[in-house]
Amino acid sequence: MNEWLRPGERIDDLMRGRMRIIQNPAMFRFGTDAVLLADFAKAQNGERICDLGAGVGILPLLIAARAPGAAIDAVEIQAALCDIARRNVAMNGLGETVAVYQQDIKTAAGTLGEKKYDCVVCNPPYFKGDAGILSLRDEVRIARHEVLCTLEDIFAAAARLLRHGGRLCMIHLAARAFEVADGLRAHGMEPKTVRAVHYQADRPAKLVLWEARRGGSGGLVWMPPLIMCNGDGRETDELREIYGEGPP
Amino acid sequence: MNEWLRPGERIDDLMRGRMRIIQNPAMFRFGTDAVLLADFAKAQNGERICDLGAGVGILPLLIAARAPGAAIDAVEIQAALCDIARRNVAMNGLGETVAVYQQDIKTAAGTLGEKKYDCVVCNPPYFKGDAGILSLRDEVRIARHEVLCTLEDIFAAAARLLRHGGRLCMIHLAARAFEVADGLRAHGMEPKTVRAVHYQADRPAKLVLWEARRGGSGGLVWMPPLIMCNGDGRETDELREIYGEGPP
Repeated sequence: MNEWLRPGERIDDLMRGRMRIIQNPAMFRFGTDAVLLADFAKAQNGERICDLGAGVGILPLLIAARAPGAAIDAVEIQAALCDIARRNVAMNGLGETVAVYQQDIKTAAGTLGEKKYDCVVCNPPYFKGDAGILSLRDEVRIARHEVLCTLEDIFAAAARLLRHGGRLCMIHLAARAFEVADGLRAHGMEPKTVRAVHYQADRPAKLVLWEARRGGSGGLVWMPPLIMCNGDGRETDELREIYGEGPP
Repeated sequence: MNEWLRPGERIDDLMRGRMRIIQNPAMFRFGTDAVLLADFAKAQNGERICDLGAGVGILPLLIAARAPGAAIDAVEIQAALCDIARRNVAMNGLGETVAVYQQDIKTAAGTLGEKKYDCVVCNPPYFKGDAGILSLRDEVRIARHEVLCTLEDIFAAAARLLRHGGRLCMIHLAARAFEVADGLRAHGMEPKTVRAVHYQADRPAKLVLWEARRGGSGGLVWMPPLIMCNGDGRETDELREIYGEGPP
């Protein structure tokens, strides 16, 4: 057993082995959506970044790989996931870059600071509390369903955490796109960029990437679609690039 | 001079010559957006359809070509355009299918009938009254800018004209997408389908096609992108098909 691992956990490579991540498959596994969001957020060195609902810390890790000079605060309410996230930070030598807070996002701004961040990232639960099949394990259920926080809670938290002109970058179901747009605007964050994620070019989008600016005005850019796989089912060059891999 | 034409006008073929259309290039010319919208609306025989701001009647003509058994009411405020639209209807032998009303859309429901239509189509002015370069000729200016009607006027009119469950199909600037979404929902019309129109697959979308249902609830379908041209600048097969042309 590796010194970093507890029972039931495993270590996976990230970004062609530039980073490694501990996960517990029974508890929570990151998905492609986190990888897409980390790339979409275009984090820069020197930025102050807050991840709302960090899970095992996949977004902070990927963002730190891109922008090692950023300062990243990861907020996660579940103790078991914070424990893994903290080990992920230490194992990758990111103790100077990423701080993990076991914290409810509803109170995050009070603890971490108002109007402090250049960028808030969030890969929220996609499903309403009463929708879909509920997983038995709490960790999975909380990560996928709006059990402990709703979209509204996320927008309220982001609006408090972001400086004027700061951006919220998130990913959410295409089916809930106008709920997202409404909520953003109701909290003074104007959608500036949307990008739909399609499994293949001829299929409807399941997910949409959002960038919204606090205090921004109109002028939306509706980006080219992000296509994950070609007609033959193989990953597109763009997806491989996002995963940190070269052409096949 | 053709019997149908007045000075300054010309006749163009539509749908590989299945229809013809009179236009006055100095006054108003239909664009690709009208052709895309007519296809997107998926009109059916037997449906009652209303076109808000019909111009020279391009949408009624294309919709009648697809669904000759539909009943189409075309509303256009400008006398000069109504005159052309009526000749277009007559020249194509569509007098039984299409009726042209010279009418302000703000009063259309009072004249044409409340909750009467299965489908309202609209290719509205894209630009705010004070935005962009204003054309000198009134007809062009009114067709492109919100001089005589705003988005709000269109939503209010559509909400009155549509039966419960009826659909509004429209096309508008991607940059104004969330204004469109907000306005639709504020008038009790829920976006059910969006489709972004990209000139090429790697460019941002300029236009978005919308289908919203009066009295509908959530469940948005974010369709595959509509790509107009391939990387080599030639029309995609889908665009050729929408124009009623076979593969090259």
